[in-house]
Formats: sequence, C-alpha cells, structure tokens
Amino acid sequence: MASSKAAVEPLAVGIDIGGTGTKYGIVDHVGNVLFSGSMSTKKHAKVETFIDELHKKVTELIEKAGGAGRMKGIGVGAPNGNFYTGTVEYAPNLPWKGIIPLAKLLNDKFKLPVILTNDANAAAEGEMIYGAAKGMKDFIMITLGTGVGSGIVANGKLIYGHDGFAGELGHTIVIPDGRLHPGTGKKGSLESYASATGVRATTLEMLQNTKTPSSLRNIAAEDIDSKKVYEAAIAGDELAQKVYEFTGRILGLALANAVMFSSPEAIILFGGLTKAGELILKPTRESMEANLIKIFENKIKILVSHLKESDAAILGASALAWEVN
Amino acid sequence: MASSKAAVEPLAVGIDIGGTGTKYGIVDHVGNVLFSGSMSTKKHAKVETFIDELHKKVTELIEKAGGAGRMKGIGVGAPNGNFYTGTVEYAPNLPWKGIIPLAKLLNDKFKLPVILTNDANAAAEGEMIYGAAKGMKDFIMITLGTGVGSGIVANGKLIYGHDGFAGELGHTIVIPDGRLHPGTGKKGSLESYASATGVRATTLEMLQNTKTPSSLRNIAAEDIDSKKVYEAAIAGDELAQKVYEFTGRILGLALANAVMFSSPEAIILFGGLTKAGELILKPTRESMEANLIKIFENKIKILVSHLKESDAAILGASALAWEVN
Repeated sequence: MASSKAAVEPLAVGIDIGGTGTKYGIVDHVGNVLFSGSMSTKKHAKVETFIDELHKKVTELIEKAGGAGRMKGIGVGAPNGNFYTGTVEYAPNLPWKGIIPLAKLLNDKFKLPVILTNDANAAAEGEMIYGAAKGMKDFIMITLGTGVGSGIVANGKLIYGHDGFAGELGHTIVIPDGRLHPGTGKKGSLESYASATGVRATTLEMLQNTKTPSSLRNIAAEDIDSKKVYEAAIAGDELAQKVYEFTGRILGLALANAVMFSSPEAIILFGGLTKAGELILKPTRESMEANLIKIFENKIKILVSHLKESDAAILGASALAWEVN
Repeated sequence: MASSKAAVEPLAVGIDIGGTGTKYGIVDHVGNVLFSGSMSTKKHAKVETFIDELHKKVTELIEKAGGAGRMKGIGVGAPNGNFYTGTVEYAPNLPWKGIIPLAKLLNDKFKLPVILTNDANAAAEGEMIYGAAKGMKDFIMITLGTGVGSGIVANGKLIYGHDGFAGELGHTIVIPDGRLHPGTGKKGSLESYASATGVRATTLEMLQNTKTPSSLRNIAAEDIDSKKVYEAAIAGDELAQKVYEFTGRILGLALANAVMFSSPEAIILFGGLTKAGELILKPTRESMEANLIKIFENKIKILVSHLKESDAAILGASALAWEVN
C-alpha cells in the first residue's frame, strides 16, 4: 500500500543554472533528492545546445522517477532570472548574452510548467519549503558566496517587486563612498565587503595597512582567497580573525537595516562565508543588535541554512515547482 | 435614484491619533471626506476619557452620515499602532504609557470592526486606495515630518513583518557613525537627517562650520526651525538651499537602498519637507539614481502625494476600514 501511494505522489524537477555548471534533480514533497545529475554550462556557447543536452539528461531522470505525468513542474534558478517574464536578462556570468527566454525554451521542450527565478530567490523558496524557514511567513534569505544574493519573503510570499528584480540586498550601500565594486561601479555596497571577494579585499588591505602578524604574509597576494583566510582564521591567525570580525560588523549593519525594513522572524544565511561559524556570526549578531532600535532587539534569529550544500541549489529550484497551480 | 443608491453605499470611518490632536471623519469609496472633526489628545491623561469623548463626537458624525449600519468599519492610524494586535505600544508622543488595547476599546464602544496600524502604514493605505499609488501593487510610502515614517507595499499588501513592526525605514542607518538620534541612541539614521528635526540640525551645523552667508545668521539658533529654513531657501538663501541639497543626497541614498530591497514602481513622499519641491526632490532623485545598479536606473518614480494635507491622515486611516471582510 505504501509504495502504491508513493507512486502517485507528485514530484518536482529542480534545475540550478550556474556560470560553470548546471545541477538538476527530482525532488519529493519533503525535500528528498531522489535522482540528480550535473552538466557543464560553460561549454555551451549557444543556449539551444545547452537546452538540448539538459532536456536529454533530465528526461532520463524523469523516466526513472515514474515519467512526466508524475512531475508537478520544473523550477529553475538562474542568475538574473526574472520570475515575471521567465527570462534571464544580461547575466554577466552566463555564456549567453542579452535576454534569453529560458522558461519558454524549457517549456517547449519538456511540455511541463516552468517557473524561473534568480538563485537567491530560489534558495529562499527552498528554505521556506524544506529548510530552516519552514512555516515562516516573514524571513530574509542571504547567500554569502562569491557575491551576495538575497530573497525576501513577506506575508508568506517572495517579494519580486514591480519588475521582478527585488531582493538586491548585496548592492545596497552600507558604507557611503566605501570600497569600489568593480562590477557595478558603485561604492560601499554590502557585496564589496561581505562576499568571498570582499573577504579577500579586506585581507589584502589589512596586510598592507597594519602590522598585525599573520601566516598570510607568507602567501603571495594573488594566491590569497577567502578559503585561505578561513583556514588561517580557524587556525587562530589574528589578522584573519580580524577580517571576519570586520566583515561581520558590516554584514550586521546591513542586516539591521533589512530588519527595520521588513521585520522578519529570522534571517537565514547560506554559503561559503558561513563556514567560519561564530568567527563571523558573533560580530554579525552583535553589530545587528547594536544598530536595531529597541522594538526589534533580541527578537530576530540569525540562522545558518542546514540544507546539504550539494543539494541546496536543486532543492531551492525544485521548491518553485510546488507553486504551479 | 442616484440618491437612494448613495444611501446604501458603505462608508468608512477614519481616525488619526496624534500626540497633540486627533482627527476623524467619514469617507466614501472614492476618498471624499463627507464629515470630519478634531479634538485634543493631549488633554486626556487617561485613555478611557479619550475614548469616551471620541465615541461621542464620532457617533454624531456617523448619525449624520446615515447611521452605524452604513459603516464598513473604523480604520485607525496611531503612532506605534500594531496591525496584528490592535494595540498601541510604548508610543513616546502619546499621553498613555505601556501597551494600550486601542482597537478593543474602540470596538467595545462602537460595536464596529476596528483596524489599527501606525500612521505611516495608514498613509500608504490611503495612497493605494485614493491617491498617487492607486492601482500599484509595489510601492513605498515615506512621510517626512518631524520624524520619518514609512509603509512598504509589496504584492499589493502592506508589509507588517512577523510582529507588525515592519517599515521603520526612518531608523535604517545611512551614515555609519553619523549624527546621533537622541530618541533612539543610534547614530546615522535616515530620520536624524531627512526630517524637520534633521533639517534644523543640518542648518545649525552649516551655520557653525561654514562661512556661507545666510539670512538665517540673523536668527537666534533656538528659533531656527525647518519652516524658517524652507522660507529662506525659497527666497534664494544659499546656505538654506545647501541644507536641502545635503538632505536630498542622504534621502536619495536611503531610497536607492529601499529600491534595491523591494523594487517598487514608485516612492510616494508626503509631509513638510516635500514643500521645498525641486529644492529637495532634485538632489534626492540624482542621489538615488547615482546609487542604483543598472537594472533599476531611470525606472522608479518619485512622486509627491497629492492628497489634501488636511484630509490625508483621515483618508489614510479610513482606507484600512475597506479591508474589513
């Protein structure tokens, strides 16, 4: 009986498109990734051949999982993915230029409903359906990777804004006239500090402008990346730890501003920077609290996503498919 | 025929409670204030006597407008009003301390549904139903008065956050370690610059720290207020104009951050500071655009509320009543 019930339960397809590779999988209602795989994005100069290969590979998994009839739909997370239009628009890290009608291309191939959004919004959906934000109606998801992405949920729904581009917390200005962001040309944005790129920049600045002893002084500047700073910090390196403290203070200020905007129940953090654990979480929490007005004090949880990193992108994308009516 | 139809059209009661006075009125669906009045808030040390007087006065208007049966409900805007709980919590400018169950007290008296929120959220509802944001699903309302209030609408709904306190844009930090806000103890918040109080503080700073000639130098420091700065600016006073330019630059930065958060179709400004017109709007627009990343550039309208100032508070409060099911 249990297996016959399982056979009719709907499943969701999740596809996460990154600049280098694309991950895809078949997911059940509670977030088990039943089948998954990956392929190169980068090698496809044309989106058409990318879609062809993706269609072939995902169809194999769909067949294994009981066929297209069991699939509720396809959720897709992609950089600069627009929920309203189903297009990917001018994504600097993807090989395809201009405006790509990705949802339509996939729908034409798969004959299944396709819902597209950007990766951070997909991550927020994933947390809401399977993860740390389960049951929450108001929370903010922040991804701290090479860049900083965000997805904001209020009244139980993702905020897309009037044009589909809401949730660019990474580009909000936290330090007016601060560090230049080479990608946007703006100064002092959260992303220029609280990202892997930002951590590297902060480290290079501290190495140059302070005399704090550090094992990182034995590494050539061009070889220093956030992973090396993390390893040094974990090993007790004073300068590396100061880098995380500085980063956390700026992140906490940005979180305080976000809290005073939408008053979330929790902020969920995900991505490389969170691996440093309390080294970054402690200054982040302290700085957030220090900048909040009284009515928000000691109320807002800062949580780290507990979704398996290897599954998180597929889960996030698949979560969108449950929204299909 | 027309008059008999009008007789059955529902009406809404709007009550705006301020620290000094309370305004109330009866409003129709398109925003005509049919009857209105006002009374003192300040003289009532106890909320009970305040409710008694308010009940008596509003009931007279309700009778004039066709009786309680015609009233859809009562919308109330009050400082620190909480939509979820119907309470006014620790409002520093009201005579009643602690947590006041205002919606319940009013419902007990009037036997009509009561919806309460804070003044800035009420203003946003007013703009959405009768004003500049009519038909918009995503916009931000900012009130620039003695303080700075905000109401954020996304997906067609006010964002209240998990606890009812969302929309405190005035307390977001725009200049880290900037000007001290005596009320909150925080440094560099939007409210400490882009409010009547902020304009006065900026003026005093500029008078002290620059040699710019100004007619304001003939006025005693304690007599300088935002109205005098406004009059000087309109009359061509260079220093007063610089005050507005400085204020607009900071406001524009805060608006850019808000835009990157929720991507609104428009930002609606209301309140004393907007009277300076282009003197403040031009630097605000320029600074907002300069801080926005490309996908948001030249897209977001900055509009000034066109609701009559004398009616706006009643309209905003009454707009809440249309939400009664």
